[in-house]
Amino acid sequence: MKVTAAQLAALLNGSVEGNPDTFVTRPMRIEEAQPGDFAFLDNPKYEHFAYSTQASVLMVSRQFTPTQPVQATLLRVDDVRGALAVLLAQFSATDTAAPEISAQAAVHSSASVGEGTSIGAFVVLEADVRIGNHCTIYPQVFIGKGSVIGDHTVLHPGVKVYHHTQVGAHCTLHANAVIGADGFGYAPLPDGGWQKVPHVGNVVIGNRVDIGANTCIDRAAMGSTYIHDGVIMDNLVHIAHNVEVGQNTAMAAQVGVAGSAKIGPNCQLGGQTGIAGHISLAKGTRTQAQSGLGSTIKEEGTAVFGSPAIPYNDYVRAYIVFKDLPTLAKKVRALEKAEPK
Amino acid sequence: MKVTAAQLAALLNGSVEGNPDTFVTRPMRIEEAQPGDFAFLDNPKYEHFAYSTQASVLMVSRQFTPTQPVQATLLRVDDVRGALAVLLAQFSATDTAAPEISAQAAVHSSASVGEGTSIGAFVVLEADVRIGNHCTIYPQVFIGKGSVIGDHTVLHPGVKVYHHTQVGAHCTLHANAVIGADGFGYAPLPDGGWQKVPHVGNVVIGNRVDIGANTCIDRAAMGSTYIHDGVIMDNLVHIAHNVEVGQNTAMAAQVGVAGSAKIGPNCQLGGQTGIAGHISLAKGTRTQAQSGLGSTIKEEGTAVFGSPAIPYNDYVRAYIVFKDLPTLAKKVRALEKAEPK
Amino acid sequence: MKVTAAQLAALLNGSVEGNPDTFVTRPMRIEEAQPGDFAFLDNPKYEHFAYSTQASVLMVSRQFTPTQPVQATLLRVDDVRGALAVLLAQFSATDTAAPEISAQAAVHSSASVGEGTSIGAFVVLEADVRIGNHCTIYPQVFIGKGSVIGDHTVLHPGVKVYHHTQVGAHCTLHANAVIGADGFGYAPLPDGGWQKVPHVGNVVIGNRVDIGANTCIDRAAMGSTYIHDGVIMDNLVHIAHNVEVGQNTAMAAQVGVAGSAKIGPNCQLGGQTGIAGHISLAKGTRTQAQSGLGSTIKEEGTAVFGSPAIPYNDYVRAYIVFKDLPTLAKKVRALEKAEPK
Repeated sequence: MKVTAAQLAALLNGSVEGNPDTFVTRPMRIEEAQPGDFAFLDNPKYEHFAYSTQASVLMVSRQFTPTQPVQATLLRVDDVRGALAVLLAQFSATDTAAPEISAQAAVHSSASVGEGTSIGAFVVLEADVRIGNHCTIYPQVFIGKGSVIGDHTVLHPGVKVYHHTQVGAHCTLHANAVIGADGFGYAPLPDGGWQKVPHVGNVVIGNRVDIGANTCIDRAAMGSTYIHDGVIMDNLVHIAHNVEVGQNTAMAAQVGVAGSAKIGPNCQLGGQTGIAGHISLAKGTRTQAQSGLGSTIKEEGTAVFGSPAIPYNDYVRAYIVFKDLPTLAKKVRALEKAEPK
Repeated sequence: MKVTAAQLAALLNGSVEGNPDTFVTRPMRIEEAQPGDFAFLDNPKYEHFAYSTQASVLMVSRQFTPTQPVQATLLRVDDVRGALAVLLAQFSATDTAAPEISAQAAVHSSASVGEGTSIGAFVVLEADVRIGNHCTIYPQVFIGKGSVIGDHTVLHPGVKVYHHTQVGAHCTLHANAVIGADGFGYAPLPDGGWQKVPHVGNVVIGNRVDIGANTCIDRAAMGSTYIHDGVIMDNLVHIAHNVEVGQNTAMAAQVGVAGSAKIGPNCQLGGQTGIAGHISLAKGTRTQAQSGLGSTIKEEGTAVFGSPAIPYNDYVRAYIVFKDLPTLAKKVRALEKAEPK
Repeated sequence: MKVTAAQLAALLNGSVEGNPDTFVTRPMRIEEAQPGDFAFLDNPKYEHFAYSTQASVLMVSRQFTPTQPVQATLLRVDDVRGALAVLLAQFSATDTAAPEISAQAAVHSSASVGEGTSIGAFVVLEADVRIGNHCTIYPQVFIGKGSVIGDHTVLHPGVKVYHHTQVGAHCTLHANAVIGADGFGYAPLPDGGWQKVPHVGNVVIGNRVDIGANTCIDRAAMGSTYIHDGVIMDNLVHIAHNVEVGQNTAMAAQVGVAGSAKIGPNCQLGGQTGIAGHISLAKGTRTQAQSGLGSTIKEEGTAVFGSPAIPYNDYVRAYIVFKDLPTLAKKVRALEKAEPK
């Protein structure tokens, strides 16, 4: 995308100071921008970069008063952050190619595809699959029998959706995510082997859910694994069978949630956090990265840390002493020696 | 699947109390069941749900004597748990479509496919691949040169099997699992770079092995990485080159096993456990989730916890003191003050 | 591959003692070798295996003087380790089939493919993709619009490369790795929901970079996520948006690096290590497996351990006391009792 300062001003309802024909090809942070880049000054702490930036166009607020010469063409707007959001949405917009169903896709005769939906090459849609309107199903996606995908949902390349899964509207599933594989449910056999528990349930994903690359969400043994509206998950997350994740909960990369755990709404789980099976986390629970939760958290908004996890502040205070344990042990030995026998 | 109470009774050798034409479409837990669901009462602790459940059909033992009115049609059987297993197997049975080799698969002329085996769309079978009888190879699977897949094995969509891999019979590999990628073997170069060690070995997987979605098992540098009969692995597990995993060992999600480690039979590794390279775990070793094992465990049936892992009970007891370390430190300071100088 | 001792001698500039027609089909470690295998004796500690090995051909140095009878045909060379490297490269060489662009690939008319490059079945190359010379693009790979792949680079089956990614020369990306998915960037909304930050940046990967199976590297919000020359990463690693990984750094499996972290050159991160966002690691930082780094490391060559990570030796010493904390607590109680009131 190549635009001039004048075109940006028209788009963002701003005004240009300098050459209106200056063109830019990408947005970039002010401290890293190169010629041909578009940068912005939002945080006053970064003002000094305005005088040294190599950006060709610099977006500033109408109130900004330079105290030194600025090389870049200035673009003044009412609300820098708001204008930036508009601009980034423009730059990230995918192509405007007409939606089509690839002739190289394998679409079962009983599958239905909504209006304005694209189906990429080497996609498989099995029997009775229903895809909503204005979806983008990238190449090499698999959607199993009877699964339903809501409107405006995007499935990136290689996503695998097992049979009878439900995915809501306005969701984004990143590449190679796997939804609906069998849960890890086995009964021990007398000979030390394992008898697989058949998994006849499914996965139900709400609206506006984002799922990271290579993330796995297993189907329920019976009933459903639920991912509620507005949940966001990063890459390589594991969600076991019969888990429920509450509305707007955020999970950083490589989190693992064991079977039948119930994660409340508005929780924030740090990267590599582990959640044991069959426990519940209250609304707004926050975990530090690498924490391991082995028991239910009942109080809303609790912050925890450690493995097993304890209240955040308790862990931090205990860890301060832990780091210097050899000194504490030495003091105790000295006291023992000093003690009158 | 839609069946009547009478059909279920015929299947399960049971008897119906109520309308034999009541139909159900899915099994569900008694406390969550809705009209149209089939539920069961096995554990006496759940008996009160029998009087409130919305299930259309409720399976109970022949001995069950209700103490209040039951709305659901009752299906009496000799052995509730056994009947449930039969029923779930029915509900989870995949379609009965005739097996076929998709015209959209790329099957090398030297590859062989057994009787009753399905090959899905966009599958690649390279030269000299041999697939057994009654296998299901889902769409978008890749099987490299000379690999062998045993009878009755299922490869879910997107599984990638590198060349010269051996997979046994009655195995299930879930979507996007990767078997046989090169191990992480490099020799340091004088300039700080890394010289890759060629990996001329392979992966050998036994019979009745289940492998989770997005799990990775690397090929050996020389010789084989072995996954023995009856092993079960959850999602996102990492098995490095030249590892050996003993019979019937179970690994929860996100476990990582470093190169040349030998895991004994009947071990149970909790989620996110890490195993260092070149160590051995005795038969029946159990690890708590997130444990990190840095040294060999010789005694069978040992349970460990922590990073580095120590005996489970030792860790739990030490952690109790850890949580209140600031108090211990305070006591020591008080003792030091009190000590006669 | 089936070769005779005489052919090996010709290849490795060695000499044969025994039957020059003895054939072997694979290299194997001396202690595990079977008839038909080729083994080698490099480390004198393994000499006793020379007298018991089942290998058909055993490579030894010209200086080796057996003290007992050897069954295997001997192959004498000047430099055992150097000859082994040559041999393994031969055994691991992929087929010599003429490179071709599969008729079953979906290649956009504006994509360009270099000389000597293979494109497998069911590969998708979108508009303006450029693939260098002598690359191998295995089946089921996806490369998005405008991405560029350097010479001699190998993309294993199922790799997904999002749009506008740059991958250098002599790189290897293992199966189902995902490069360029959107980073996990969201701004909180007043209602508890999340507003996605558009990701208009990309991923830039240098030369001679190896990336493991199912590893994920996210694109930058603005600018680029950088993986510099010579970096090696194992399976299931997570690299967030705007991260920078310095030259020749090695990451073991399941490492996670959060957004905007800067990892210096020549670092070695142990398996399952977690790196917090926006921190920096100095050149040559080493982390023990499962460590969690929450703050910047300024001194080159620092070794750390623990979560949060502290200097390696400090952690080890503190952990020794930790393991026996109940005893320390008991001693303190005894001292308190003994203290004169």
